[in-house]
Order: sequence, then C-alpha cells, then structure tokens
Amino acid sequence: MKKIGVLLAGCGKNDGSEIHESVLTLLSIDRANAKAVCMAPDMDQLHVINHLTGMETEEKRNVLVESARIARGEITDIKNITAEDIDALVIPGGAGSIKNLSNYAIKGTGASVNHEVLRLINEMSDKAKPIGAICIAPATLTKALSSKNPEVTVGNDISSAEKIEAMGGRHKICTVDNIHIDKNNRLVSTPAYMLGPGIKDISIGIEKLINQIIDMI
Amino acid sequence: MKKIGVLLAGCGKNDGSEIHESVLTLLSIDRANAKAVCMAPDMDQLHVINHLTGMETEEKRNVLVESARIARGEITDIKNITAEDIDALVIPGGAGSIKNLSNYAIKGTGASVNHEVLRLINEMSDKAKPIGAICIAPATLTKALSSKNPEVTVGNDISSAEKIEAMGGRHKICTVDNIHIDKNNRLVSTPAYMLGPGIKDISIGIEKLINQIIDMI
Repeated sequence: MKKIGVLLAGCGKNDGSEIHESVLTLLSIDRANAKAVCMAPDMDQLHVINHLTGMETEEKRNVLVESARIARGEITDIKNITAEDIDALVIPGGAGSIKNLSNYAIKGTGASVNHEVLRLINEMSDKAKPIGAICIAPATLTKALSSKNPEVTVGNDISSAEKIEAMGGRHKICTVDNIHIDKNNRLVSTPAYMLGPGIKDISIGIEKLINQIIDMI
Repeated sequence: MKKIGVLLAGCGKNDGSEIHESVLTLLSIDRANAKAVCMAPDMDQLHVINHLTGMETEEKRNVLVESARIARGEITDIKNITAEDIDALVIPGGAGSIKNLSNYAIKGTGASVNHEVLRLINEMSDKAKPIGAICIAPATLTKALSSKNPEVTVGNDISSAEKIEAMGGRHKICTVDNIHIDKNNRLVSTPAYMLGPGIKDISIGIEKLINQIIDMI
C-alpha cells in the first residue's frame, strides 16, 4: 500500500489547516487505496483565531494537538518522519500552512520555513518523491525548494503569484477543478479555496492532485 | 435551492462534531445542489479533549465558535433558526452530538436534550420535514422524539441499541455503506464511524443519507 504523508498545520482555515481541504485529501487517498500518514510539527500555533468573529484570541494551541482533531488521533510529530517512511507528501492549505509551517503570512518573500518541514520537503525532493500542495501551501513549498525554481499554482491571485516568483518559483494560473504539474521537480498543486467557490468545486482539483501524486510514485 | 440545516456540536470527534462526517455532509449537500445552513448552540462544550493523548484538558471552548471552524465562519446560533428557515435538518456524529447537543454521553437513557436542539427537532418533526442523523447522533435524536418511537440505526452496537430502545426508539442494524429510513417519522440514519473502518466507507452512507433526505423534501 502506498503511503502518502499528509502534513497538517492545525485545525481551521484561519490559524491551521483548512479543514475541508484536509478531509478531502484524506478521502481521496483512501479512495485510491493508499494509506494516509498524518503528521504535524509539535509547536505552538502562531496564534488562535475565533472562526466565528475572525478575531485573534488570547489562547495558546499546539499545532500537533489541534491537527490530531482532523487526523482522528492518528498522527505523528513530523520530527519522527523521514522520506524513507513515505512515498509522497501532500500539504493541505489554510492559513496554518503559511503561519505555522512557515512564517510567509507575516514575512512574505523573506519567510523562513519550519526546520522540520524544510528538512522533510528537501529529503522528499532529493529522492524525487512527489509532493503535492493545495491552496496557499505552495508558497511554503516554493520557499522550501527555492533553489530548484519550483513551478506551482495558487490559482490566479496576482499578489501571491508575484511573491512566489520573487521567492524563486514560477507561478502558473490554474482553475479550481484542475492541477498544475511541475514534471522536473515532481510537484503537483491545485488552487482549492484560493478560488473556491464551494466544497464540491475544490473536491475535483484535490482528487486530481491525489490521483496524480499516486500515479507518480 | 433546497436548504439543509447542519447542526454542529464543536470540532473534533471526542468533544465536538466528528470532522470527517461533518465535511462529507457538507460535500454531499453541495454536490446535490442544495445549500447547507450550518448552526450550533452558543454554549460551553462539556469539556475539551486533547485529541493526541485522549485526555481531558483544563481549557474551555464554545460549541458555536469551534463549529465555525468546520463551517468556515458561515454559521448561525441555533436559537435564531426555526423550521421555517430550512427544508431538512442533518446532525453529524462525534461525541459532541451526545455531550453538547444532549448529555446522553453522561446520563445515558436519562439524558436531557439542549432546549434549542429539542425545540428545532420537534418543530421539524411537527412539520414533517426530514431529519438525518449520523453515527451516534441518533441517540440524541431518539431522546428528542421519544414519544414518536423513532426508528434509527447506530450500526450494530448492542449497548447503544438497547439504550435507544429504552428511550422509546426502535433500533435497526445497518451497514456503514447504507442508511435506515423511518418513513413514518421521516428520519434517515447511517452508522458512519460507529462502524468505520475508514473515510471512504463512511462517505458512501453519508452520501446516501443526504440524497435520501433531499429526495424526501
């Protein structure tokens, strides 16, 4: 059974992994008869957002602990995962993918990537194992692989596209029901909620991404 | 566009709504070209469980605020929703459906149902509008409609089935890829993670439940 790493960043679109994108990732992996290996960094979230009001709260939450909600408890600290353990890696979107996995949301093109995330992405790339990134997660992926000029999509958002190019990436416009493939770097990306509009729309691109990733293994 | 109320109970299988079941509910509603109307009670959760360790924490979290993570912020306090506003109601499972929407998890057959949940379920039933319940949520639904002898499934768990019968319900065994329909009371239920084993399995029963509910409108 092919093992697909799913790198989570919390639980909620404003401070963690986007929940719909993460669950649809797990659904597509299971439907493809592959096994999801969920993981997240054991660290405090950048912050906690009340998703009803959109306002920051005083709480502290841990990325691994909150990601465990999406993973139904079956999750591992990313520090214990190497590229030997998985056949591919997928990073769902949500603000956590650029607030916790990297600090792109704060620092923009000057972002740094969490050191365990940076390590695993580069291990995967060095072994030519495929990596998928959904929604805004390609920004963190681009920063992690900037020396390889990764070609990704975040949909059609000009500001994000310009930042990706400034970080050494190449941005391609893509619709929500489709994927962009960087054959040289073995990367697959899809815009998902960067474009929306709804869950049925994003499910099409995410299913294509997972099936493509699995075909590349 | 048909409007399907989705009654959430937090965000996470151990103290809120089961995330996969909730997201698959939203996916099936959108794919059926209906509109999801997410709602939850504005109240403290019974407790907060660390989903990595399974242990209770000292935190306090609000059911409506945490449910907003699954609903991407588009959610209403259940007290502002009446049976006039929706064509059907669906209750995803997870421990929150029996810890927050009722106290069945603590009190068993002597449970009481949150007063707004009790009101809305009975309004829907009085208007013969269909109600769906997933996983363990049929326990709360049975308590709310006990005088009408609701016929539901929670899979094949004997202890839960006996409690449902003791609360005035009738329990039917059902597989994860199927639904049970109570035609008289216009109720539909599916076992989901009461049986599992995986997300692709539960997605089949949940999709059937949503399509059946929409056919009954």
